Amino acid sequence: MIETPYLLFLGDAPDQLAAKVAQGIKDWRPQNALGQFRMEGCGADLGLKDMTLEEAKAAGVKTMVIGVANRGGHISDSWRDVMVRALELEMDIASGLHNLLRDEGPLVAAAQTYGATLHDVRVPSVGYPIANGRKRSGKRVLAVGTDCSVGKMYTALAMDAEMNKRGMKSTFRATGQTGILITGHGVPLDAVIADFMAGSVEYLTPDNDDDHWDHIEGQGSLFHASYSGVTMALIHGGQPDALILAHEPTRTHMRGLPDYSLPTLDQLRDTALPLARVVNPKCQVAGVSVNTQHFGEDQALSYLEELEKRMGIPAVDPFRQGAGRLVDALEAI
Amino acid sequence: MIETPYLLFLGDAPDQLAAKVAQGIKDWRPQNALGQFRMEGCGADLGLKDMTLEEAKAAGVKTMVIGVANRGGHISDSWRDVMVRALELEMDIASGLHNLLRDEGPLVAAAQTYGATLHDVRVPSVGYPIANGRKRSGKRVLAVGTDCSVGKMYTALAMDAEMNKRGMKSTFRATGQTGILITGHGVPLDAVIADFMAGSVEYLTPDNDDDHWDHIEGQGSLFHASYSGVTMALIHGGQPDALILAHEPTRTHMRGLPDYSLPTLDQLRDTALPLARVVNPKCQVAGVSVNTQHFGEDQALSYLEELEKRMGIPAVDPFRQGAGRLVDALEAI
Repeated sequence: MIETPYLLFLGDAPDQLAAKVAQGIKDWRPQNALGQFRMEGCGADLGLKDMTLEEAKAAGVKTMVIGVANRGGHISDSWRDVMVRALELEMDIASGLHNLLRDEGPLVAAAQTYGATLHDVRVPSVGYPIANGRKRSGKRVLAVGTDCSVGKMYTALAMDAEMNKRGMKSTFRATGQTGILITGHGVPLDAVIADFMAGSVEYLTPDNDDDHWDHIEGQGSLFHASYSGVTMALIHGGQPDALILAHEPTRTHMRGLPDYSLPTLDQLRDTALPLARVVNPKCQVAGVSVNTQHFGEDQALSYLEELEKRMGIPAVDPFRQGAGRLVDALEAI
Repeated sequence: MIETPYLLFLGDAPDQLAAKVAQGIKDWRPQNALGQFRMEGCGADLGLKDMTLEEAKAAGVKTMVIGVANRGGHISDSWRDVMVRALELEMDIASGLHNLLRDEGPLVAAAQTYGATLHDVRVPSVGYPIANGRKRSGKRVLAVGTDCSVGKMYTALAMDAEMNKRGMKSTFRATGQTGILITGHGVPLDAVIADFMAGSVEYLTPDNDDDHWDHIEGQGSLFHASYSGVTMALIHGGQPDALILAHEPTRTHMRGLPDYSLPTLDQLRDTALPLARVVNPKCQVAGVSVNTQHFGEDQALSYLEELEKRMGIPAVDPFRQGAGRLVDALEAI
């Protein structure tokens, strides 16, 4: 559990795209983002108040979140100096960088001296159980994709936000580093040991009120040769009551696998649903979430309309249209 | 790679069943098993020559393999004394015990002093790649089960032995601790980090001669809520040309999951084959391997006959009947 509120560290991010973790926090949990910290040469700007570390501390910041990828895969001296100073001010630091904070001697020393915590969210910090498959109370929805990186996390966050707006009981359950930094907790599923994957998802989505929805962040794809095992564990550990099919219609091959074409949405439905019903016989496919960012508005809308007519379930782009109709479909279950 | 030949350490095994790892080595790689080492009160006997450590060394043993489960989950003083002496004689030690050799100070010290190696086969010793899904040369067969522990490893070892007998090119590829100890190498798949599971299976089964068969040891089941992700990674990393369906017909529920009934063999076929064809469109289901140990001979044979007629592919119990007909079916592919 990462303590909020946050100061978002943008460092010397070359552009806005490099700061997408910070952008995600600001978009989805604005109440957690008190300010931003930018260094010489920073090309990103979230439109938040620029703060010094001392101002952040005075404003009540508990954790500085590294909201940017580092260049060249190492933590530079200038970043490290800032981090040490934050720890001296007794702020925690949270990071999803490949190179771990805990491997940096000066950070470990400062954290110990000042009683601050280093959160490396790529690394599991819990001994997860083996999955037991027992039916849990409460409701769960999982987005499964025709490919990786087609908008599964966005879809889950948008449905969670819509449910909160409607006063429904709802929690986004992060399974990746960006999601964990956005919400402050979750399971870094891609770093969990094979035997404990499904168990970690059960741990993440425990018994809950009958009218509570967990929005489980999806990972990988059943059709992606590299990561399908992770997706399978999400389906069986997550025990979803509803699946949302996620798709990006201009993708010409599976991400990182040039020899692999994408499955159709029908193939995805017909593969994922029977597997989900192994653990939850009542599971239904509730809708389709399409990332239409590469389409113009007219093309996007006509694509969605045709898809919806053909498949007989709501087909929406939650970025263009909001997640209202997906939530309607979940409410109808 | 564990160096052969072995001395099989049976310790104070209470009975034959407790020594099943050692039994597996003796059954499948008798040429590797030079002798057995038994302590006071040992209730197991493999029928091998009883050797002192000094005799084993003189006979050319390279590695002492812990062929028995330890009681109470710790390595007793009496075991440790034997292990230290083996290391002093410059023999390596290989173990699949839960508690690791490398966590035992006296063993680590002795290994360093005498230049011997401690093999903890439960723990990956390789940095596996992310799977790339590229088509590899050579042929691969994978047994997939209706449940865990239905005879997948036995089936693979039996098919490998039959191919060797016929002079075919064939390798058993271990993915679990027992298999690794039997053959001296492999991937401890259940202990691999999620993102690298499929990649570790690709690493295990690289390009090979066009007429060479890899017999990949199966794990878990697509229908087992706890381990299905591991099975999925085996299917997509293994890129099988042929699947063998494995089944134990008297099982009343999924192993360890009292609320889950087993799928039918038809469900298993219809689930596993389309998933396998994602990475290898030519994959076929070649046969069924049934563990009929709880049936009498007549019941077993009539069960297999009916099954074969119904499914239209060879159905055999390799323990009763040998794997000849399964290998025939693979040769026909």
